[in-house]
Amino acid sequence: MGHRLDDVSGPARLAGPEEGVSQEELALAARNHGMPLEALRYDVTPPGLHYVLTHYDIPYTASSSWQLTLGGRVRRSLLLAIADLKAYPAVTQRVTLECAGNGRALLTPRPVSQPWLVEAVGTAEWTGVPLRMLLAEAGVEPGAVDVVFTGADHGVERGVEQDYQRALPLDVAMGGEPEVLVAYGMNGAPLPPQHGHPVRLVVPGWYGMAHVKWLCDITVSDTPFTGFQQAVAYRLRQGAGDEGEPVTRIAPRALLIPPGFPDFMSRTRVVRPGTVALEGRAWSGHAPVTGVEVSWDAGRSWSAAHLDGGSGLRWAWRPWHLDWTATPGHHVLSARATDAEGHTQPLEQPWNRGGFVNNLVQRVPVLCLDPDDGT
Amino acid sequence: MGHRLDDVSGPARLAGPEEGVSQEELALAARNHGMPLEALRYDVTPPGLHYVLTHYDIPYTASSSWQLTLGGRVRRSLLLAIADLKAYPAVTQRVTLECAGNGRALLTPRPVSQPWLVEAVGTAEWTGVPLRMLLAEAGVEPGAVDVVFTGADHGVERGVEQDYQRALPLDVAMGGEPEVLVAYGMNGAPLPPQHGHPVRLVVPGWYGMAHVKWLCDITVSDTPFTGFQQAVAYRLRQGAGDEGEPVTRIAPRALLIPPGFPDFMSRTRVVRPGTVALEGRAWSGHAPVTGVEVSWDAGRSWSAAHLDGGSGLRWAWRPWHLDWTATPGHHVLSARATDAEGHTQPLEQPWNRGGFVNNLVQRVPVLCLDPDDGT
Repeated sequence: MGHRLDDVSGPARLAGPEEGVSQEELALAARNHGMPLEALRYDVTPPGLHYVLTHYDIPYTASSSWQLTLGGRVRRSLLLAIADLKAYPAVTQRVTLECAGNGRALLTPRPVSQPWLVEAVGTAEWTGVPLRMLLAEAGVEPGAVDVVFTGADHGVERGVEQDYQRALPLDVAMGGEPEVLVAYGMNGAPLPPQHGHPVRLVVPGWYGMAHVKWLCDITVSDTPFTGFQQAVAYRLRQGAGDEGEPVTRIAPRALLIPPGFPDFMSRTRVVRPGTVALEGRAWSGHAPVTGVEVSWDAGRSWSAAHLDGGSGLRWAWRPWHLDWTATPGHHVLSARATDAEGHTQPLEQPWNRGGFVNNLVQRVPVLCLDPDDGT
Repeated sequence: MGHRLDDVSGPARLAGPEEGVSQEELALAARNHGMPLEALRYDVTPPGLHYVLTHYDIPYTASSSWQLTLGGRVRRSLLLAIADLKAYPAVTQRVTLECAGNGRALLTPRPVSQPWLVEAVGTAEWTGVPLRMLLAEAGVEPGAVDVVFTGADHGVERGVEQDYQRALPLDVAMGGEPEVLVAYGMNGAPLPPQHGHPVRLVVPGWYGMAHVKWLCDITVSDTPFTGFQQAVAYRLRQGAGDEGEPVTRIAPRALLIPPGFPDFMSRTRVVRPGTVALEGRAWSGHAPVTGVEVSWDAGRSWSAAHLDGGSGLRWAWRPWHLDWTATPGHHVLSARATDAEGHTQPLEQPWNRGGFVNNLVQRVPVLCLDPDDGT
């Protein structure tokens, strides 16, 4: 005997100094995907281009037979089919969603996990029922502190077999800013399988780990939730034994649409001399974005970009633009967002063992060709 | 001076013996994505789960202003808007599409390029106009040998700036078996941006490099096409200086839906003892799949699976299934497809410098837990 989960499920670790990306990390990269950065051009990310991260498998779920239970410390439990959810007044919100591990693969040392560069982001129009409306109907009892959400995705992580579960503090779950949604629609259609079909949580302004997909149960608890994804994963730790701070809201980030055209293999961008229109998006889960600066000299100097939008879509990314006069040579472009609470992006990596909340400024290497080069 | 494309665009190379996946390869893996293998359960791959490979950027294209030109060695050139294409009788075909580089990252030595494992596949219903109908209307002149297709995607590869271009021999372009489509619909909707919006080529049975996306020009040529993607890339070479054979039709492959549930990081599958229903899909671009065998002892012995379907969908994958009695311990599952022309999958890697047409059998490590383990 002796065939146990620990055989295939080891502890978290950091990559060694010269260690390339492993086949295990590559297996995650091949199935989860980022948003190709040229898709920053869309206000709402087209289907299939929005980033996706699933810890385990995408479960095979049928909308017609789905049941969402709501229980725990409530006066009356609810059993909700999708049709029941649709009978409530629908709320639609445009929300920019980002993975808490975005940027991880650029860290030194590199935490071994889903190896994101900077593209784990996307924006969608989510439609559903406000969570606070369902909680009000069930009637939250005194003493409740956390609301626990369970998805239908099942797997093992660091030796622990589990359904994916995350909790929100009661005040966040009951609050209206942000308006937490029990969502059954994405961009006017049913949720695709990989985005939580038929129902998921959407917590505007929070990193993706809070937006539980394939949502099958909501339980109000009078004790703080200590499940794996809350107490072990998704915490900011410097040392392996630290308790760590929980990962919550999205730190500000600006990304630019890589200008010109790419080399297939190096992904270096190529432009020709002259005016290059730089544009991109910026967002923050803490407060509205109030400024974006752009650098074309690898962060030595910065110029203020023009912020567009600001149309009251609080939880969606904001477009920005700035012209750059490209001269022949090698350049590194960057953009840096700042929000109304003064949060901004660091120029040195904000390292932690999980590689979370890493909003180091993007670096886009660009070659500007000599005037006489090419066609 | 001296800022030229060669600065950022090097020659093809093989990874060193201990070389992990590089950040450049990871950048390709983060934007291109495979089909999560649990999606083998769907006859038609849902939007966003079908594999995607784009050499350069996804171009920003508008259906309303799109124009497809057809010229060269024809009696009269055609200028076709999307509405013009839709005025022809529409043909819909269910087609399994696979990247020619599928399996590349598993090779030893590993060609440095898009690092696919085995998941670069998907099946869609493509709707469009038969290419031979458009060629007949234009009137192909005597002496024509190749039909060249140009996409709107633009970039650099191995020092060569280019629009993506591929050709088909005239007999393939004019043939009805397979029926080559100029496609404007995918699964009953307009093409998504990453699949060639608004129009692409679909060449059933051929690897993905032939299915030119963002198709803007068709030129009939009386000389063999020698563009980069035909004469340099997508050839089967053992040595860097070989002329090599061109990559054309899809070699047979069977994949199984990984059973049980995964460990997040190792991606090893976990099952409990007893009957495990194994199922998957198999396809070949040469001839119909006639057999699938399954192994649960790392390829030492094989059992015939039950082939389902066979409903006349010649260009779509075929489902298969077989029960396995899992016993505690570590196992490696594999499946192997054979087609009506006797092509089958090798048990040793079919290596070439580009990592193309690698249909080595899949290996799925599975841990079967002890009966008393877990919950």
